[in-house]
Parts: sequence; C-alpha cells; structure tokens
Amino acid sequence: MPRLVVLLTDFGHLDPYVGQMKGALLSHAPEARIVDLCHQVEPFNILQAGFFLAASHAHFPEGAVFAAVVDPGVGGDRRIVLVEKHHQFFLAPDNGLLTLLLLHGGPYLVRDVTPPWRREASATFHGRDLFAPLAARLVNDTPSWQLGEEINPHSLHRLPGADPVRTEEGIEAMVLHVDRFGNCLLNLESEAFAAMIFKAKSPGLTAPTVCPLYPALTYERLESGQVGIIKGSQGCLELAMKQQSAAAALKLAQGGAVSIRLDRR
Amino acid sequence: MPRLVVLLTDFGHLDPYVGQMKGALLSHAPEARIVDLCHQVEPFNILQAGFFLAASHAHFPEGAVFAAVVDPGVGGDRRIVLVEKHHQFFLAPDNGLLTLLLLHGGPYLVRDVTPPWRREASATFHGRDLFAPLAARLVNDTPSWQLGEEINPHSLHRLPGADPVRTEEGIEAMVLHVDRFGNCLLNLESEAFAAMIFKAKSPGLTAPTVCPLYPALTYERLESGQVGIIKGSQGCLELAMKQQSAAAALKLAQGGAVSIRLDRR
Amino acid sequence: MPRLVVLLTDFGHLDPYVGQMKGALLSHAPEARIVDLCHQVEPFNILQAGFFLAASHAHFPEGAVFAAVVDPGVGGDRRIVLVEKHHQFFLAPDNGLLTLLLLHGGPYLVRDVTPPWRREASATFHGRDLFAPLAARLVNDTPSWQLGEEINPHSLHRLPGADPVRTEEGIEAMVLHVDRFGNCLLNLESEAFAAMIFKAKSPGLTAPTVCPLYPALTYERLESGQVGIIKGSQGCLELAMKQQSAAAALKLAQGGAVSIRLDRR
Repeated sequence: MPRLVVLLTDFGHLDPYVGQMKGALLSHAPEARIVDLCHQVEPFNILQAGFFLAASHAHFPEGAVFAAVVDPGVGGDRRIVLVEKHHQFFLAPDNGLLTLLLLHGGPYLVRDVTPPWRREASATFHGRDLFAPLAARLVNDTPSWQLGEEINPHSLHRLPGADPVRTEEGIEAMVLHVDRFGNCLLNLESEAFAAMIFKAKSPGLTAPTVCPLYPALTYERLESGQVGIIKGSQGCLELAMKQQSAAAALKLAQGGAVSIRLDRR
Repeated sequence: MPRLVVLLTDFGHLDPYVGQMKGALLSHAPEARIVDLCHQVEPFNILQAGFFLAASHAHFPEGAVFAAVVDPGVGGDRRIVLVEKHHQFFLAPDNGLLTLLLLHGGPYLVRDVTPPWRREASATFHGRDLFAPLAARLVNDTPSWQLGEEINPHSLHRLPGADPVRTEEGIEAMVLHVDRFGNCLLNLESEAFAAMIFKAKSPGLTAPTVCPLYPALTYERLESGQVGIIKGSQGCLELAMKQQSAAAALKLAQGGAVSIRLDRR
Repeated sequence: MPRLVVLLTDFGHLDPYVGQMKGALLSHAPEARIVDLCHQVEPFNILQAGFFLAASHAHFPEGAVFAAVVDPGVGGDRRIVLVEKHHQFFLAPDNGLLTLLLLHGGPYLVRDVTPPWRREASATFHGRDLFAPLAARLVNDTPSWQLGEEINPHSLHRLPGADPVRTEEGIEAMVLHVDRFGNCLLNLESEAFAAMIFKAKSPGLTAPTVCPLYPALTYERLESGQVGIIKGSQGCLELAMKQQSAAAALKLAQGGAVSIRLDRR
C-alpha cells in the first residue's frame, strides 16, 4: 500500500484550505492515502498541535507521513524540518510544534527540508505550496536524504513551560486541551491519584475553583456532579465528569493552570 | 474492492479522536476505505445517532461496515453488538442506538462481539481501541461468526418513546433532528398532509407555537414565511421553510414535541 | 488511477448529508476517490461557493470531477450543467455558481445534464440523488456527451455584481469571504498597493471604518495592529493582520463593502 499522509492543521473547515492542500498532494502523489488527524487546532496554538501529534502518532502505521502545519511565522525565516522517529515521518515548521513528540521515546533524526524555491511560492500558504509537495515526495518513495541535510537535533526550536512544576504542596499543571466533552487534558502522565485541586484558574478568569478530585477508571464510574481524575485515552491525566463538562464546571480553558495537592495517605 | 467502513460518532472535529480511530483501523486493515457519515451527533444523543443510521444505510453499498459509537456507558458493562441486516454490518454499543434501524425491514442477526480483552484496553476510548479493530476484522474478511456468538435479538436494549402517539385530535410527534438549514425532521413517515400544528414545544421553552402547515413537494414551492410539511430526503416528514429556519421560527430543537391536528377534509 | 471527485457544498457537518452523498457516489462508482473541498459554504451563498471553486480548481489534477451543490432552487426548474474546462469537469446547478470560474481562462464547453428521471428522485436532495450518480458516470469513464446535449454558454445564469467598481477616488470592492483567521478576501486581483480604506461597511452595521492599508508580502511582516493588504494564496487581495482578525477589527463580514482610495505617489 502507498504511504499514509496524516494532516494536522489549524486551517479549520470554513475555508477551502484543507481541500486545496489535499489537491496539491494528490497532484504530486496520485496514490497517496490521506487521513485528517485534526484541522481545528486553535489558530496559531503550537502547543495544542504538538500535544495532538504526540498523543496520536502511535495509533498510525509505520511509514506514515505526518504533515503538521500550525505556523504563525509562515513566510518568515523559520525552517521546515523533517523528523524521522518510530519508523514514521514528521514534517513541521521549526517553531516548537515537535517539542512534546521528541520529549520521550527513542532516537530520531532531523533534516532541514526548507525548499530552496520557497521565495517563488505563495508567501502565505506553505501547507499547500511547500508541505504538500514535500509529503508527496515521501509518498513517492524519494529517500529522505534527498529532501535535505541532516541537522543537529539540539538546534530545533523547543517550547518552554510544557512540563508540570513540582511544589511543596503538590503539582502545578496546565490544561493542554479541552475536548468536545469538556474533559480537561493535563500535562501530567500519571500519579496524582487521591488528590484535590486547590486552585484551577483560566486566563481571563479571576476566581479560582477549589474542589476534590475523585480518581476513577472510567467516566461512567463517577457519581453525578463529582470531578474525577482519570487516566484517559490520550496518555495523560484528565479532569472529567460523568456526561457533563468538567471545563464548564471548573471554568477551565486550554492553557489554564491547575494546582493539585497530592494526598498521599 | 475492499469493504467500506462508515463511521458515525459524537466525537466532533475539535479533537484528534476521529483521526486516531481511523489510524487504528488502517493499522489493522491497511486496505480499508473509510467514509465519515457524521461525527457531530450531539454528545451522548443515542436517539439522534440511531436516526442518522436508519436514514442513511440504504445509500451505501452492500457489504459496508458501519461503526456507530455514541456511547455514554463506555467502560461500563454494556455489550458491543454486531447486527447483520440488508447485507450490511452494524457495530454499536448495546444501548438502544440500533432501535430505529431494526424497527422496519427484513430479518437480521445479532452477535455479542464484546472483546474479551476489553479490560486491558483503554477504558475510555472504545471507538479507537475496540470498535476499530472489530471493523478491521470484517474488512479483512474474517467471517462474522468468529467475532462472537449469536444472541437473541430480543435481548437488545431498545429506546422507548421513539414512536409517534395518535390521539383523538391528531398526532403527538417528536423532532428527531434539526438540520443545518433549520428543517425539523419528525418521527413521522407519511400522511399528515393537510394539517396544522396546534402546539410545538421545545425542552426549556414555555410558550407553545401554533401555526398552519402547508404541504409541499419541495422547499422552493413554499411561499416566504409559510411553514411547510414536506416529505423530505431522510424518509420522514419535515417542518420546513423556504430559505429560512423553521426551527428558529417555531422555536423548536431536537427532542421538541409537536402536536399535529390532522384536517381530513 | 480512477478520477478524483471533489465535493463543494453548503451541507455542513452537523447532518449525515455529505456522508449520504458519498455513499451514493461509491454505490455507483466503487473506485471513486473523494476529496472534500469545503462543506461549510454559508447556506445558499452561491457567490461564496463560486469563489471557492474558482480559487481552488487549479490545485487539483487534470481529470478531476467537481460536484458543487449550493442550490437554493433545488426541486425547481433550474438546470444541472456540466462544464468542461482546464481538462476538468464541473457539475453545478445553473444558478450562477460557475460565474467566477468562467470569467477568466481558456475555452470551455457546457452541457445540460439534468437527468430526465428527476421527477421520480427525491425532490429535496439532488446532491445525493442526482449529482452523485452524474459524478459517478464520469468516474466510470462514460463519455460526457452521453450525459447531455451541448448548450450555448451564453444561456448560463450569471451572478451580477461580482466585479469591483472603479470610481474617481479609487475602487469599490467587496468581501468575497472571511476566513478562519479573520482575513477578508476581496474581489480584487492585484494593485491597490499603497492605499487606504476610507470606508469599510458590512451589512447591518452603520458606522464605517476608516484605516490606512499597509502593503506586505506576508502576514508575519506586518506590525501588530496594522491592517495589511496582501496578495494572498487564493489569487486575490486580502485585508489581514498579524495573528489577529482583520474582520473583527474592521467589523467586516462576507458581502461587506470596502471603498479603497489608491494612493499613487
């Protein structure tokens, strides 16, 4: 089977942008099979895109080509990079999007694949005009060394502040994403079972929320009205309620701060 | 051609959940062709999902595998079932989602295909971790009897209250779905031509609306401002207006009650 | 490879309509490869759909079949037409949707492909019941002359008012589309560099906005708070801001009027 191309962008579904990117890809690689990972990353939200990529890639087959385009600096001087890891390919602007993906796991290899012709290409839509042709070359089995020179992984741009901070009282965590069901996905990978929130604060909101956290294995086992802390399906801990939005109850949004007091009885 | 897999969920498009489900499917069945039926079923709205499935399956080819995941009880004890009907396959949680599909038409066969490994799988995302691999086995032509034991169709969970109620004055119907254009799709399959609404009431609204209904063959033949009753494309009667939202005019939402007085002159 | 079918509609993603249209297409042409161009055209907005089509088709391969269904007159007497241009196929209702596509470029050929069986088909969902089977016939390599008779291109319905108007002071332009990032795409193909807006007015808003326009090559080169005029990726000029919504700042919506004073120093 020809390689899978997996698209992750902040282009949304109101415009013909995702469609045009697919058209460009299929013009260069007619056999490509395309899967949409998500196109509703919050505009310019590099951290959220990076989280989606890190949480999702393992569910795709080996050989898959990910094209992740959340790119506030489009048309500027930032590079386009190709990372090879887990027998998969990741194309992204060098703006920190790959930070979470590279945090864990085995070795990887990075190339600068910024095309020399970028000056002539559309200055504002690299997803269609640069990323799609690059992905197409990988689909067409062009060896990756022909796309660009290997570069030092330490030269990659990294996002700061994505890690939780341990304090005397517990952990200062962050909401990486609020999903459709109102679950708040945290930058915490485990523990915190038997805990309470003593401060949950979103940007723009003043009053912090205080509430106990009930550890649970599934949403369904929570009582109505309880806020649970659940090891969810995305590889991280989630604040969740049973058929109710934890984000609404706690007034939390993406980027919100959550101070968790661990209760190690 | 390999089998078509048709996805119906309440996962929405804000999260990478649909993408991950497709990744899992293609990891197990690389040749699968995937079509999205709808992913914006209202969260946990089993009746709406069941309506979409019943209204849509006939437009897909024989052999198609439908994976319908609207699943408030995920991680609980509810079974996963496979129904074979109309030479098509339907995977769903046993929570009533299949009620409308099974209401009409020919014979069918039901299997309990709950995987024994569900305890080890992610407890909160069965769409990706259980339904996708099950659909993949059907794509790979695993005979369905290998997926699970046949069970008594009468043991399936059914939703109550999906049928219209006849009264002395007419019919008590329900809004199964309000579509993008504001058309209100009713749980009525025919008749009611020459009729009027004498009460249309949505949950949360107090003042009922009264209005005459104009039978019409197409939206385009209605006068501006008229509320029409139309035998629409989804196999049921719709309240509709010409290039205007009937739902907004009548203050109706999904689940709303509509009392129709038939006028059999 | 079998032909690509590219779908453009105002059906949205809340309903199973797009999915049913794909099901019908794959029932008639199992090998079809389908790409979504956009399904969130504003309901009944023929001009916006026509703009998306004109701005997008060149990014798709030769032989592609576009099915564009924004169709307020569905079920009425309007024809369904097939245009062959740029070695591609365009199916659309004859309601002006193709105006912008036909404005520029080489010769084309038009056929009336309204199926004789339309009276028996669903009167309200021609996308699924008429357009999908027509597209399928093209995918199956039915010669286009078998679909319908050639007609006089001058008989096609055209939308008025899509062109900018030159005045003594400058140009009266229109917002063809506001994209997800708040960029306002204008019906202007070039020039206007070194200019200012002296009136930007949206339907329903009274107070016009006045502001200077800074010509720029990329969003990234604008200063924070500046409104730029950029030759964007869609073949037209855009009003844009750096990581901010120009539409919100200027209170502009689709269809809004923009009076631009050229400053030819």
